[in-house]
Amino acid sequence: MTAPGGTGEHGDTRGRDAGQGPARAVPPSTVARLPGYLRALHALAAEGAVLTSSDELAARSGVTSAQLRKDLSFLGSYGRRGVGYDVAHLSERVEVVLGLTTQRRVVIVGIGNLGHALANYSGFADRGFAVVGLVDADPDVVGTTVAGLTVQPFAELAGLVSGTGATIGVIATPAAGAQVVCDALVDAGVVGILTFAPRALRVPAHVDVRAVDVASELQILAFHDRRRTGTWEV
Amino acid sequence: MTAPGGTGEHGDTRGRDAGQGPARAVPPSTVARLPGYLRALHALAAEGAVLTSSDELAARSGVTSAQLRKDLSFLGSYGRRGVGYDVAHLSERVEVVLGLTTQRRVVIVGIGNLGHALANYSGFADRGFAVVGLVDADPDVVGTTVAGLTVQPFAELAGLVSGTGATIGVIATPAAGAQVVCDALVDAGVVGILTFAPRALRVPAHVDVRAVDVASELQILAFHDRRRTGTWEV
Repeated sequence: MTAPGGTGEHGDTRGRDAGQGPARAVPPSTVARLPGYLRALHALAAEGAVLTSSDELAARSGVTSAQLRKDLSFLGSYGRRGVGYDVAHLSERVEVVLGLTTQRRVVIVGIGNLGHALANYSGFADRGFAVVGLVDADPDVVGTTVAGLTVQPFAELAGLVSGTGATIGVIATPAAGAQVVCDALVDAGVVGILTFAPRALRVPAHVDVRAVDVASELQILAFHDRRRTGTWEV
Repeated sequence: MTAPGGTGEHGDTRGRDAGQGPARAVPPSTVARLPGYLRALHALAAEGAVLTSSDELAARSGVTSAQLRKDLSFLGSYGRRGVGYDVAHLSERVEVVLGLTTQRRVVIVGIGNLGHALANYSGFADRGFAVVGLVDADPDVVGTTVAGLTVQPFAELAGLVSGTGATIGVIATPAAGAQVVCDALVDAGVVGILTFAPRALRVPAHVDVRAVDVASELQILAFHDRRRTGTWEV
């Protein structure tokens, strides 16, 4: 989970421009926070801000200033003392590191309530993603139009991925079908999978999986709630 | 983020039953993995399994055996060498630690596509949660029936939370309204918030927030995809 292409480990210590060191290998925990920083930077830009402080940016991102400064140091972005960070410059830097300078194409499999919500989510385009294909196994759903796209049958998945150049697949099916869908996405050439199905998925080493399980998130909240009530003993 | 009520730190080292040590303070990273273990245990139980090994349970949970054993040791559950873990016993133990022995009540605010998907998600009831209230600000949505519940106006939020005993609020509104909704949920007495709105939320110290931002998850996948293509230099 390091960035082997980073220049910092390989002898070239010259920054691209003044005040920017080279990017070092970025730890996974830092990568996971970068989207939040980018979101806050875009909000600042929309409000007309040209410069921001680490305190301001940290507060808007829900992290401490120290955490923010440490994370941005991995990107070679240190800010200038008494001046702060240039909002446009830092946004671009984070986008480059996240690989958002090219729009990524996404296929969604499973067009139930959740798949509908995802297909219609307007926030994807703003943040570097285009939903280019929808797939479902249900004959009643195939052929319907959702968010301007015609839902394709499962048999068309491979052709859809190769034809659109999609590199990311979203699994919004029930748990039972998720591994079959996952295998088909991987065979079709997808290299990143975001799954909402409540089960662990097996993938080859070159494929990354991010899992969102809503009930698990609630269970984690329940842990804190229970702890708070003091009924630890069983 | 420790469990101050845990017995391990406070002198009582007697386990509740043979082979079970007392629970120690459970680290947040372990808490975050417990729902996955519970999901795998329930799947094993559904298949009729009485015992399981750490290898089996780890594989189904998508973690290493070493990680699993370490996590379960925080719960005072060590398994028996050559025998493994008792599926029913361990499930119960995880449920107790997560606070799932009492059903938690959940209110959802924002009944768009995502709110519909969440309200209709059948997996909540199986996993310890009851959706007891739906709220929306749109007069066209208020009064409609979703998943057997009538959508209430925002003005009814406080009464709905206190009347139902809800302790968890789910925010499925656009980003712009999320902080106002969050404040209202906190004022109404909710102690856990799961938000899908793409912005950081401010809450008092006694309230826990879990945030799911789908576009952020895609951006994290994009990082790995970009890294893989080797175009690190900018």
